[in-house]
Amino acid sequence: MTEIPAFKKNLPTQIAVLGGGSWATAIIKILSENNVKIKWWLRRKSDVDFIKKYNHNPSYLTDAPLNPRKVRAYHKMHDALNGVEYVILAVPAAFIPDALKNLNRNHFAGKKIVSAIKGMIPEENMLVTDWMEKVFGVPQNMLAAIAGPCHAEEVALEKQSYLTIASPNLQVAQDYANLMSCRYIQANPIGDLYGVEYCAVIKNIIAMACGITHGLGYGDNFQAVMVSNAMQEIKRFLDIVYPDPYRDLHSSGYLGDLLVTAYSQFSRNRTFGNMIGRGYSVKSAQIEMNMVAEGYYAVKSIHQVNKQYDVSMPIIDAVYNILYEKAIPANEIMTLRTFLK
Amino acid sequence: MTEIPAFKKNLPTQIAVLGGGSWATAIIKILSENNVKIKWWLRRKSDVDFIKKYNHNPSYLTDAPLNPRKVRAYHKMHDALNGVEYVILAVPAAFIPDALKNLNRNHFAGKKIVSAIKGMIPEENMLVTDWMEKVFGVPQNMLAAIAGPCHAEEVALEKQSYLTIASPNLQVAQDYANLMSCRYIQANPIGDLYGVEYCAVIKNIIAMACGITHGLGYGDNFQAVMVSNAMQEIKRFLDIVYPDPYRDLHSSGYLGDLLVTAYSQFSRNRTFGNMIGRGYSVKSAQIEMNMVAEGYYAVKSIHQVNKQYDVSMPIIDAVYNILYEKAIPANEIMTLRTFLK
Repeated sequence: MTEIPAFKKNLPTQIAVLGGGSWATAIIKILSENNVKIKWWLRRKSDVDFIKKYNHNPSYLTDAPLNPRKVRAYHKMHDALNGVEYVILAVPAAFIPDALKNLNRNHFAGKKIVSAIKGMIPEENMLVTDWMEKVFGVPQNMLAAIAGPCHAEEVALEKQSYLTIASPNLQVAQDYANLMSCRYIQANPIGDLYGVEYCAVIKNIIAMACGITHGLGYGDNFQAVMVSNAMQEIKRFLDIVYPDPYRDLHSSGYLGDLLVTAYSQFSRNRTFGNMIGRGYSVKSAQIEMNMVAEGYYAVKSIHQVNKQYDVSMPIIDAVYNILYEKAIPANEIMTLRTFLK
Repeated sequence: MTEIPAFKKNLPTQIAVLGGGSWATAIIKILSENNVKIKWWLRRKSDVDFIKKYNHNPSYLTDAPLNPRKVRAYHKMHDALNGVEYVILAVPAAFIPDALKNLNRNHFAGKKIVSAIKGMIPEENMLVTDWMEKVFGVPQNMLAAIAGPCHAEEVALEKQSYLTIASPNLQVAQDYANLMSCRYIQANPIGDLYGVEYCAVIKNIIAMACGITHGLGYGDNFQAVMVSNAMQEIKRFLDIVYPDPYRDLHSSGYLGDLLVTAYSQFSRNRTFGNMIGRGYSVKSAQIEMNMVAEGYYAVKSIHQVNKQYDVSMPIIDAVYNILYEKAIPANEIMTLRTFLK
C-alpha cells in the first residue's frame, strides 16, 4: 500500500483572489474546477453586484460561467481576506499600493501570498513578492508566483495549458500547483521565485520591443533573433541578480511565457509597441489604447534596478530610450541591430 | 596602425551554389551583394535557360532580380564546380545522393563545402556534412553549415536578417560569414558544426509537431510549452551525441532558427503537420501539398539515430509514431501532454 504524498494533503478550503481582470477571471475559472471556496475581490461595486446576479464577469471572459456555489464576489477587501489561507494577487502592479493601502500586517498574517502579477511596483522598483515582504512582513517561505505561458482567453476555452508555480517553499508551490491543476491545466512547482518573477516582468518589455520592430517593418527573421537575444539578456541579468545553478531558462515558465507574449497579436504590450513603431507618441498610444501596458512601467523599473548591476541589456536599453528618452524608434533599433547576433 | 584581421583576407572570387529552390535563390541574392562570381547549378535545363534570358528564377522569389554580371546559371554540375573554392549545397537532403551521383572526390578536392540544407541523408541517417566527408572525402576542416533564422521570402524583401555559419574551422566560418554579410544580412561564425546541423534538422520536426497540434485545435499556450520542451529535448540530445561546453542554445542559430520555423504560417513542415492534425493521411497530405516536407524524412532519421543513444525525446517520438506507426494524432498528442511541463 502506498502512502499519499505529503503534498496532496494540505489543500486549502478557502482562497481569496484580488483583482477583476481577464487573468484573475481565468484563475477563478481554474480554481472552480477543484474543491475550494473562492472569495473574489473586485474594485468596482457594480461588478460585484453584476457577478452576484449573472454569474459571469461583465468585462472579461464574459463567456466563462462562474459557479455560485464556489465563487463569491466581494467589494470590501478585508471581507474577502477573512478566513482564507491563500491569497492570489491579480491587480496590475502599478495599482497594488493603492488597492492595498487600507490593509495592515494582520490581514496577511499566516497567509500564503501568490503573485499572479507580471510587473514591478513603480517608484520602488520592487518585485511584488519583495514588496509584500517589506510592507506587510510576509515571510519568504509564504510567498509564491505564478507564471504561464497562459493566455486567459485560452483558459476560457479550456485549451490545454501549463502553469509554473514558483516558491522558495516547495511545499507551498506544490500545494498551490495541486489547486490549479485540472482537466485542461497542468501546474508544475519550482523553487526559483525571483527568477520567474523577473522573467515575467522582462517578457512584457520584450513583447513591446517585438511590437516596436514590427511597427517599423522588421519581419519574422528579425523577431526570432530578438527573442533569442532576449533570452541571453535575461540569462545575463538573472545570473548576476539572482544566480541559481538549477534554473533552466528553456522551461515553459521562462521561455514559454516569453514566447506566448512576444508572438501574440493580442498582447497589449506588443500592440502598444507596434503603435510606437508606427509613429504614435507614448501619450497618444496610451490614449488610443485606453490603458497602460505593463511593459511601460516595467522597463523603467528594470532599467533602474540594472543601474547597480550594469548588465549588458541592449534590448531593454533600446525600449527604455524610446519610451523615456525620446529616442527615435527607427534610429534606436538601427543601433540595437548592431548588438544582436 | 592596426592590421586587417587575418580572416578578412581570404575572400574567394568564385563560388558555386547547387540547387534552385527558394533558399538557394535567396543565397544567390545575398552573395550578389558582395564581390564574387556565382556559378549556379539548377537541375532543370529550362530553368537555366529562363534565368539566362530573364535574370530571375522562374519558380522561386521571382521578384528578386539577378545580376547577370555576377550570376551565371549552369545545367551541368561539373561545369559549375570547375574553378571554385566554395561550394554551397542547397538541394533537399533526400535528393542529394542522386544529384551528386556522377561526381567523384576530385570534383570536391580542395574545396570548402557549405551545407545550407536542413535535413539528413535518408537511409544512411547521416548529416549532410558527415555524408560529404564519407562519400567524397571532404575533410572536416573544409566543412561548414549555414543556419537562420532566415525565411527566404524576407531576404527577397531585404528585411534585416541574421545568419549563423558553423564550422570546426573558424577561419572557414569567418570567411564565409564575410561573404554573406551585407546591408541587410549579418552573418556570425561559430564552431559548433554538428550542433547547428542537428538543430536545423530537428526544428523541422518540431514545426511539424506544432502544425499537428494546431490542426487538432490546441492553442498558443500549448505551442509555447511545446517549443520550450523542444529546446530541452534538443539540449538532451546534443549533450549526449555531440557535447560542447561552449554551445549556447539561446543563440539565434539554434533557438532563433527553431522559432522562425515553428511560428511561421508559411513553413511547409508546419502546414504538412497541420493537415495531419486535421485528419489527412500522410499520403493525401503529400499529394495535396505536391511536395514532401523535410521533417517527414528527418523524424525517421533522428528516430533511428536516437536508437543507439536512447535520449528521452517525447516530441520526436510522437511525430514518428503519427507519421510512421499509424498512431492516431489525437491519442498520441494526449500521451505527449503528460510528458510536457
